[in-house]
Amino acid sequence: MSAEDHCSDEPTRLENTIMAIFSSQTPNYRARAAAPASQVRLTAGADTQDDCAVFSFHGNQQLVVGSDYVRGPKFRLYEYGLLTEYDLGYYLAAANISDVAAMGAHPIGLLSVIRYPPAMTDFVFKQVVLGIHDACETFGAPNVGGDIGGAERLILSATALGVCRPGGALLRSGAKAGELVCLTGPTGTAGAATAYFRARDTSDDIETRHREELLASWARPRARTTAGITMGESGVVTSCQDTSDGLKATLECVASASGVGITVFEDRLRIPPPVRAVCRHLRLDPLEVIMGDSVDFELLFTVPPEKQDPLEEMFDEAGAEFHSIGVTTSERGVHLETRSGQRLPLPGKSWRHQQN
Amino acid sequence: MSAEDHCSDEPTRLENTIMAIFSSQTPNYRARAAAPASQVRLTAGADTQDDCAVFSFHGNQQLVVGSDYVRGPKFRLYEYGLLTEYDLGYYLAAANISDVAAMGAHPIGLLSVIRYPPAMTDFVFKQVVLGIHDACETFGAPNVGGDIGGAERLILSATALGVCRPGGALLRSGAKAGELVCLTGPTGTAGAATAYFRARDTSDDIETRHREELLASWARPRARTTAGITMGESGVVTSCQDTSDGLKATLECVASASGVGITVFEDRLRIPPPVRAVCRHLRLDPLEVIMGDSVDFELLFTVPPEKQDPLEEMFDEAGAEFHSIGVTTSERGVHLETRSGQRLPLPGKSWRHQQN
Repeated sequence: MSAEDHCSDEPTRLENTIMAIFSSQTPNYRARAAAPASQVRLTAGADTQDDCAVFSFHGNQQLVVGSDYVRGPKFRLYEYGLLTEYDLGYYLAAANISDVAAMGAHPIGLLSVIRYPPAMTDFVFKQVVLGIHDACETFGAPNVGGDIGGAERLILSATALGVCRPGGALLRSGAKAGELVCLTGPTGTAGAATAYFRARDTSDDIETRHREELLASWARPRARTTAGITMGESGVVTSCQDTSDGLKATLECVASASGVGITVFEDRLRIPPPVRAVCRHLRLDPLEVIMGDSVDFELLFTVPPEKQDPLEEMFDEAGAEFHSIGVTTSERGVHLETRSGQRLPLPGKSWRHQQN
Repeated sequence: MSAEDHCSDEPTRLENTIMAIFSSQTPNYRARAAAPASQVRLTAGADTQDDCAVFSFHGNQQLVVGSDYVRGPKFRLYEYGLLTEYDLGYYLAAANISDVAAMGAHPIGLLSVIRYPPAMTDFVFKQVVLGIHDACETFGAPNVGGDIGGAERLILSATALGVCRPGGALLRSGAKAGELVCLTGPTGTAGAATAYFRARDTSDDIETRHREELLASWARPRARTTAGITMGESGVVTSCQDTSDGLKATLECVASASGVGITVFEDRLRIPPPVRAVCRHLRLDPLEVIMGDSVDFELLFTVPPEKQDPLEEMFDEAGAEFHSIGVTTSERGVHLETRSGQRLPLPGKSWRHQQN
């Protein structure tokens, strides 16, 4: 049996993999940012193997905490052999940290639940842990604990934590009529990737020019932590949500939670080149793809129009960006205003109630 | 189709089940205890449906956070039809809150991940949520959010949060030689229940006198939150861990983390009547059952001998109890001292490394 085929038990994996990767995490923890994150210390992290991770909080702050399960083994691109277990781990961490970013908070830590089938080797298990670990490093939220152990199949779930100044958390419900609706980046690439690789109808143009970006939308999703922190500290952003349920669903959700309507202007919507290429190749409507159930991790937020310029300056300074796609209205409902001035229902699939 | 057979989609379940059960949670949140828990406010709970739950922290405190996956559908008693989905939900919450209790912290909230197969009806889904909700009420840690959605099978995971005074978190690593090793209650009932119901060899005596308690060990596990809070506030407890990996494994873990040995005295070990009855019936060694992989949620902790009396007074006042089962030693290793004064390896299965 080669070393790569070995399947250790849980205590052995804790010792050989987890402790090796997380050695000295607790003494080395540094909050990297300004207050309030710098007022948090890690007292017991993944290296202490306690019942819980422990953070020490100093002064007044808000704690944000979210949990997301990830359908790793059900990702189409993983089924097609286009994603590795490292990628699944990376995705798990990024997806959860995105929820902290969407609250306008500084990430401070992540707990991960990794349950694996008996046949998952130590080598593959380590790839999952490394993927989580590396995403956590990238987004500044150390992996401070969680749970590992056996299950019938690979199960990945996590909980991300963050802090912000008192009153700083950005809820979905804070938008008022007459504000700008903005995005930290265009959506649709993850949805286009799924459509392209599922169709098994390759295009030389896409393979040459867009394949890498399409795969990266699933293998290296970007949690918009810099944008989130900037928004939380700006004091001018009124609501925020990440677009992981799809852009249309996110627009509907913010509008409904805030009791406003939203009009999106077609001419402000950006269509990423890989989305355009895939839609041309597969004869899809790009608007449907960018609005639909594409699992991207951009942040949708609202800001009063007179605060757009100061916010843009803050984003510039932080190295982040956004663009506005629409406005909130006192009249309820979510609409698209086309280039020709027509008012239409938003295209794309919403995260909707069953039609029975 | 009857109402009990209906399978709604995720947004419908959020609206009809989650929002109905958690309505007004955020405005009604009260920290029920003394500081530091009273300094925490819930700013966005399950009723706000945001990306994260939000807690507002005032003053200095320690946050503890732990995640545990629960093998619900793989519980033998569930497979045998002896546990309901309500019980699985209750278990999920209790098991996670137990980890907060083991840190000596006040529970402040729980996030739950509930992923269900397509055929799970709204009725059954609601039973899972109610089980989680009721355990959360019982143990004072409201269910403030999480994740629901589809999966190939029922998947249950959760994250529990708690707070304690600065420096108050009880780690596994704090025991010194010459201290008492104590338990908040006897172990073994969960293991005896599994053994009894698996054997399918009923005993009239057990059916009449012990069946209810055996089932309750799985259906209504008790997180020892009162004991945990009392220990955290006492300032005299040096280490703590819950016994959910089995008593022997817990003893080995605390001893190893603290760099001490432990001697357990056979004559101080309590064997619950249902365990005694099952062992008599199935010809098992009671010591092996109470030490083995029985998943009970008692707390194992260490305290200097001169602090035993004051701690007992605090427990009395709080309505909790404990008994000592052994002592820590400077010589490493975990042993049993029998009634006749013999020194033996601890019986029972430890949570051990593979023997290859």
